[in-house]
Amino acid sequence: MNNQRIVLASRPTGEPSAANFRLEAVDLPALQDQQVLVRHHYLSLDPYMRGRMNDGKSYAQPQPLDAVMIGGTVGEVVESRHPGYAPGDKVVGMGGWQQYAVVDAAQPGALRKVDTTHIPLAAYLGAVGMPGVTAWVGLTQIIVPKEGETVVVSAASGAVGSAVGQLAKARGCRVVGIAGGPDKCAYTTDELGFDACLDYKALGHGKELSLALKAAAPNGVDGYFENVGGAILDVVMARMNAFGRIAFCGMISGYNGEPIPMANPSLILVSRLKLQGFIVSEHMALWPQALKELGTMVATGKLKYRESIADGLAAAPEAFLGLLKGRNFGKQLVKLA
Amino acid sequence: MNNQRIVLASRPTGEPSAANFRLEAVDLPALQDQQVLVRHHYLSLDPYMRGRMNDGKSYAQPQPLDAVMIGGTVGEVVESRHPGYAPGDKVVGMGGWQQYAVVDAAQPGALRKVDTTHIPLAAYLGAVGMPGVTAWVGLTQIIVPKEGETVVVSAASGAVGSAVGQLAKARGCRVVGIAGGPDKCAYTTDELGFDACLDYKALGHGKELSLALKAAAPNGVDGYFENVGGAILDVVMARMNAFGRIAFCGMISGYNGEPIPMANPSLILVSRLKLQGFIVSEHMALWPQALKELGTMVATGKLKYRESIADGLAAAPEAFLGLLKGRNFGKQLVKLA
Repeated sequence: MNNQRIVLASRPTGEPSAANFRLEAVDLPALQDQQVLVRHHYLSLDPYMRGRMNDGKSYAQPQPLDAVMIGGTVGEVVESRHPGYAPGDKVVGMGGWQQYAVVDAAQPGALRKVDTTHIPLAAYLGAVGMPGVTAWVGLTQIIVPKEGETVVVSAASGAVGSAVGQLAKARGCRVVGIAGGPDKCAYTTDELGFDACLDYKALGHGKELSLALKAAAPNGVDGYFENVGGAILDVVMARMNAFGRIAFCGMISGYNGEPIPMANPSLILVSRLKLQGFIVSEHMALWPQALKELGTMVATGKLKYRESIADGLAAAPEAFLGLLKGRNFGKQLVKLA
Repeated sequence: MNNQRIVLASRPTGEPSAANFRLEAVDLPALQDQQVLVRHHYLSLDPYMRGRMNDGKSYAQPQPLDAVMIGGTVGEVVESRHPGYAPGDKVVGMGGWQQYAVVDAAQPGALRKVDTTHIPLAAYLGAVGMPGVTAWVGLTQIIVPKEGETVVVSAASGAVGSAVGQLAKARGCRVVGIAGGPDKCAYTTDELGFDACLDYKALGHGKELSLALKAAAPNGVDGYFENVGGAILDVVMARMNAFGRIAFCGMISGYNGEPIPMANPSLILVSRLKLQGFIVSEHMALWPQALKELGTMVATGKLKYRESIADGLAAAPEAFLGLLKGRNFGKQLVKLA
């Protein structure tokens, strides 16, 4: 059987381009004992993949050249030589940028069966998947919001940001989003229930954004979920209350090589801030608790989300490059079947 | 009775100078009920005073103009109209830059009687006082060092830094100091038992310091006690291990107005660091526990310290300006009686 896949053809210098990827077709091998063949329905595209394309030191191993790009996937078992899986089972895994994956199902965590009765399959890549759990961990373990506090989140209409805001609202917080463009902003306030949203494309990254944040967070900022990095971090830091907490989840702005400095780190002392970085895959023990809350909220309509769906594997590179530029609106997926 | 005192005459623009201070003599008022007259033996000079000289937003109220400069003091009760204090009692307080203080002893925390049987009076301004507790809180509450981990501390020969290193050694850590000059470095390794000390005056604040740190901390850095800020922070951050902790205690470099940026905040995410600022006066509940350990260590010779003693109140401004430039060696005091 034929399998289309996308491999990393070369490492980017600076901004990545479509030329860094190569689409190729290979034959699928016959299944070995304990293996499962999964046909992917959706591939998840996520900012962390940009970091993997580099060769430098990061928290994760670099993506090898000429190997299938890593990525989260949902799909359906089409063939199984593992007793725990049968054709028709819906599964979540890290199948990568390809139509099919041969998975060693005996390996812990390689595949997880999911129930699609009340939760759409694709949601397991978003609100009830890695992005949702990322929001949950950063909010509940680092920001630890109290009722009545103000929480700010950047990339607010994205898969992580939209969950952060709704989880914080469910905890009685005032929530202020930061997003690019009037449509994304209106979405977070009108559909997700955020109290305010600041459009950095209109307000810029300096004085005007700072004044808008002051107006939107009149009691100051207690928690900030950082999805972006760069100048927006500086603006929010300057508005943090004493004992504020910042969860560092994404630093998109810095992925292309040049580090972006933090303007005034002495605020960490002056405002007695706590800044903490985390990676959701290092908090596996928390996933069941997080997925339970997220799944219940999605099934009952209390956690809303939006998806940008690219059609077909060949569309994945452009969709990924668009994600890095914020062109997606909500969780970026690629439909593979 | 006559009392000499130093008031803040003007606020500095940029670097402070002796002209910002004014020495004056005033008559002491007669004691009211519940008041105590304390003759100061030593005044403590500390970096935080620089922040108080500014008018801008900081964690503390600015020092008022024409009022006595604030400061920690130890001394002896010479007259008392409070039943809990008698002439001859040794006390610690915040008496300010003056020879005598009239203290409302009924105010909680205004005065604390201390025992000088095994601990010298001046030590209550250093190793068994605010600097010692500062070291203890930052180390045990934020860095939380495990045996075998590597802890780095800047301003290593100072009152706080020397306690941080010895407390970390007592917990089984490898300790690397950063200090200015060969004498200060030799002191931390030869007398305080640090494993290594890096002289930033010889090594600079860049590549050479970074390579020296790599050699001194071959397993990377797990905890960093930040007393300085600026470029040294960048060097240490780049050597932090995953899940490293940085306690922000001082940012001397930035006190003169211009914020000094942090070069690469994306390391917070990449290395999953925790950075946290703190002020020791906001952790009063921990003082008894901290003072108990510090006092025992001093009394048994396990916590060593060094003092720079300026003679007489008139010498305080120059001693303070020298402290800000790192000219002191150990805890900076002014002998007043």
